[in-house]
Amino acid sequence: MPGKLKRLLIGRPMKSTEIEGEKLSKLKALAILSSDALSSVAYGTEQILIVLMAAGFAALWYSIPISIAVLGLLTILIVSYRQTIFAYPSGGGAYIVAKDNLGLSPSLLAGGSLLVDYILTVAVSASAGTDAITSAFPVLHDHRVLIAVFMILILTIMNLRGVTESASILAVPIYLFVVAIYVLIICGVINYFTGGAHAAAPEFGKTISNVSLFLLLKAFSSGCSALTGVEAMSNAIPNFRQPSDKNAAATLMMMGILLAGMFIGISLLAYWYGIKPAAEETVVSQIAESTFGRGTLYYIIQGVTAVILILAANTAYSAFPLLAFMLAKDKFMPHAFMVRGDRLGFSNGIIFLSILSAVLVMVFQGNTENLIPLYAVGVFIPFTLSQLGMMIRWIKLKPAGWMLKLFINTVGMLTTLSITLIFIFTKFSQIWVIFIFLPLVVYMFMRIQQHYSNTADQLRIDLFNEKPIAKGNTVIIPVAGVTRVVLNTVSYAKTLSDNVVAVYVGFDDESVRKIEQRWNEWNPGVRLIILKSRYRSILGPLRKFIDTVEWKKAESDHITILIPQFITKHWWQNLLHNQSSLMIRAYLINRKDVVVATVPYHMDR
Amino acid sequence: MPGKLKRLLIGRPMKSTEIEGEKLSKLKALAILSSDALSSVAYGTEQILIVLMAAGFAALWYSIPISIAVLGLLTILIVSYRQTIFAYPSGGGAYIVAKDNLGLSPSLLAGGSLLVDYILTVAVSASAGTDAITSAFPVLHDHRVLIAVFMILILTIMNLRGVTESASILAVPIYLFVVAIYVLIICGVINYFTGGAHAAAPEFGKTISNVSLFLLLKAFSSGCSALTGVEAMSNAIPNFRQPSDKNAAATLMMMGILLAGMFIGISLLAYWYGIKPAAEETVVSQIAESTFGRGTLYYIIQGVTAVILILAANTAYSAFPLLAFMLAKDKFMPHAFMVRGDRLGFSNGIIFLSILSAVLVMVFQGNTENLIPLYAVGVFIPFTLSQLGMMIRWIKLKPAGWMLKLFINTVGMLTTLSITLIFIFTKFSQIWVIFIFLPLVVYMFMRIQQHYSNTADQLRIDLFNEKPIAKGNTVIIPVAGVTRVVLNTVSYAKTLSDNVVAVYVGFDDESVRKIEQRWNEWNPGVRLIILKSRYRSILGPLRKFIDTVEWKKAESDHITILIPQFITKHWWQNLLHNQSSLMIRAYLINRKDVVVATVPYHMDR
Repeated sequence: MPGKLKRLLIGRPMKSTEIEGEKLSKLKALAILSSDALSSVAYGTEQILIVLMAAGFAALWYSIPISIAVLGLLTILIVSYRQTIFAYPSGGGAYIVAKDNLGLSPSLLAGGSLLVDYILTVAVSASAGTDAITSAFPVLHDHRVLIAVFMILILTIMNLRGVTESASILAVPIYLFVVAIYVLIICGVINYFTGGAHAAAPEFGKTISNVSLFLLLKAFSSGCSALTGVEAMSNAIPNFRQPSDKNAAATLMMMGILLAGMFIGISLLAYWYGIKPAAEETVVSQIAESTFGRGTLYYIIQGVTAVILILAANTAYSAFPLLAFMLAKDKFMPHAFMVRGDRLGFSNGIIFLSILSAVLVMVFQGNTENLIPLYAVGVFIPFTLSQLGMMIRWIKLKPAGWMLKLFINTVGMLTTLSITLIFIFTKFSQIWVIFIFLPLVVYMFMRIQQHYSNTADQLRIDLFNEKPIAKGNTVIIPVAGVTRVVLNTVSYAKTLSDNVVAVYVGFDDESVRKIEQRWNEWNPGVRLIILKSRYRSILGPLRKFIDTVEWKKAESDHITILIPQFITKHWWQNLLHNQSSLMIRAYLINRKDVVVATVPYHMDR
Repeated sequence: MPGKLKRLLIGRPMKSTEIEGEKLSKLKALAILSSDALSSVAYGTEQILIVLMAAGFAALWYSIPISIAVLGLLTILIVSYRQTIFAYPSGGGAYIVAKDNLGLSPSLLAGGSLLVDYILTVAVSASAGTDAITSAFPVLHDHRVLIAVFMILILTIMNLRGVTESASILAVPIYLFVVAIYVLIICGVINYFTGGAHAAAPEFGKTISNVSLFLLLKAFSSGCSALTGVEAMSNAIPNFRQPSDKNAAATLMMMGILLAGMFIGISLLAYWYGIKPAAEETVVSQIAESTFGRGTLYYIIQGVTAVILILAANTAYSAFPLLAFMLAKDKFMPHAFMVRGDRLGFSNGIIFLSILSAVLVMVFQGNTENLIPLYAVGVFIPFTLSQLGMMIRWIKLKPAGWMLKLFINTVGMLTTLSITLIFIFTKFSQIWVIFIFLPLVVYMFMRIQQHYSNTADQLRIDLFNEKPIAKGNTVIIPVAGVTRVVLNTVSYAKTLSDNVVAVYVGFDDESVRKIEQRWNEWNPGVRLIILKSRYRSILGPLRKFIDTVEWKKAESDHITILIPQFITKHWWQNLLHNQSSLMIRAYLINRKDVVVATVPYHMDR
């Protein structure tokens, strides 16, 4: 049953050799890797306007230069990440670049920062998507957490089904969104120039006395939230078809151009139409309404926007498992993240990401807006480290034309560093927690690696001098009565050793007398030892007995505990039997140097 | 750590021989077994008045004859349960009496009905106690469920600590309650006759046209809710000091007299003072206020009443585990209910009762008032069956004076049967669910017994003809590399059999090539078999390999799977290792007829 359900949800298992078929074409890669970046068009301009509005309506004209600054930053990031892709064609996220050029701690900081970030992305996107749904259907408002968790579940299943399949499904809404926004921008511009909608726009270039540098920086950093998805492409190079580096670079360019056009288009229209940010209606909604009125086109735009906000999470689903895999390969995360699931994805990474983001959604009861600055700063730290790493690389390697490359990355590094500092400066009260949390994550990575290296040291053997040696074996069988299960176990024990004893732990004289009598009648050729338990514990007396045997036996002998166990036909029947054998097994295997074997007797009714 | 916490909460483990010290004196027994019955004084009269109020204030005088009828019923129950105690001195609840005289199904019906009832009692009492607390501190109203569950937790811990200890703690508030109510009655009566408080009482004996027989019956049956705790004493005879039957009978009498006095006293005062039932103030509170005013005495009475409402649950904690033990001894419930815990109580019964009642509280969000009729009918069914059983017993055995005994139980049976029918007749819409649920419980008891008897049949051996026989043994070691754990396991395997193979499940050519090379270099004297897994599953190829071995080996040979496992020093380190060995073990032990042994290698770092 669970097996069938799994097949139904995620599909048939795939052979390891089918992995080439799971590689992505440029168009599909764009669909699943750019959803995070492109979705920021839905709120990027609005974030800027909200900050500026603090200085009044007249200050809103600043959104145009700020948007241009954001675009400039986008250009720098894309050009420099393009360089990274060609320099690290097997996948060059911030973690790899930092590890290669900056050393251990910065690389772990970059990796940990991104992992945390992806978890936040999923939680925030699922909550944002839920808000879009509950705005349309207010009756659902009480079930926000449930809806958000359900969305995470859907994303999980889709991603467990595999990369190409989710790309095929996701491509439709994402391209619809892009087309819809461009139609909106084109119609909006035509509308404006044909004089269809002339609202009062704030006067451009007018100096506003109460606009401080701090406010402008805050607005700029809010606009930079739109750039959070840029990193994903360079992490996911291995998922592209050959030549994967060229394809990744081209896809990155494509994404940059689409994003730039939509972002500046929406910012311009918002300015021209004199739109004010409002709590009850988004900026995109206001522009769409001014352009088309509340008709079919308006609702299409609102619909695809809601869908894209949810799908933004999918970028994290592509990038997290790959990054976790890389960290696990270097032994900073559990091996489990290296295992490919039935559909060739790193399913443990997918499931881990889902669980943690669902927990976040539940803890914050779906109100994850406060996490947004946290995840913006969480992405600019690795941006900066990655640029710095590239700078050092160019200085060390000095390839042809390295001066230009160094220049590009230096500009990139300085810009992203500035933005990081602006974030810290303008939003410290919302992000300080990350400076406690990230060092803890890095410390955890190091402890994990230390454990793995300790384990490897302890398990390593000298192939030429350490060979197996056969020794003696004392077999102990705990029995609860004279039954077929015990008969089965004693038969087996006789094949192992001549040194077999049965042990009975008795709580009262009556039961002891009874088993002694039956054992003697049966006379199976194995001695029965009686242990009395005044405290009605089986483990205590058994442990003491094993201690005695350990002390008496020859230095080199093994001790084997054979546990007679009957296996019920149906699982629920287990509830009817005291699971002493499981308890004995769990206890002994962890505490004592004995071999514990379960000798099963399968019931047929 | 968990061990220490357990010691702190429930105390040191006790020896089996200490059980005599856990027996109860009459005064302590009265404290823990009568709390349910005595607490009904707090609401019994009120229940009658609420029903009568439907016919107006003038109808309230009927509460006096109805209270007398309830007292009559109490007398009948006590006299007939006294007979039961002497007839079944080793514990004669409805289950035992019905089993002995009426046969299987009625006894299971009685037992199941009582078990369900005890669970309802705990849920209802915890909710009632919570209501008393939140009435005093309305800020706590939002945390009702939490408070109720916390109370259940306290009761659980107290009962896990053992019978005498909880009796010592409980005796104080219960005797305080009895004293407080008697002080109230005496002062109230004096007050009334000295003319201190002359409110208008409804005229006694006046015929009210709209009082139907149905209404009177309904009022009577509501008053009968006060009798729900009477059964407990006869179930708990084994908990009394010697002579346990005489002590139990005397305690039962004592409880009856206390209950009767308090019940009629409160009913009389309510009538004399002309008290109307009100939603916002209980009848006892109104009487106390009229008598003492809102002074210290008033608050003492309110306080002990709140405490006693919670402690009513404790009767269920005494009776449920004993009844579950009896049913488990007869194999109708899981063996687990027969195990005595560290403090000699049947701890599994206590914990099971707590969990189910806490679930009820959570499901009903603390609004368990609707469960009250359910638990009243759930207790009158076993009352009736128990009386009927006693009747049949007297007819069969005909001891000295059996005619009188038969007469008493016949009156008892007819009365309790009538009340059951009145319940069904007047409150069917609230209790129908029990007629679906009880047959299911009885069916479950029977299925459980059938499973145990099946199991016993299958496990029974012929002591004279079935002896253990030693056979051959094929040992299979799944390995993941050449490590110290494998060295350890191969060494052990060589002590068991000459027929040992190691098996490696490889996902790719690279890893297969590597292990083959290392194995050949090592040359441990054991053949390595390589299984290729195209679907990256370890279990699949391993299972197929075992199938092949099963098919090839001699008919009678055992197959042993030795799983090399390293045991980490700290539990959390397990998270860092794929628990393939656990998976292999769990899978094989349930599906295949092979012995699975874990060969541990304990890490020291």
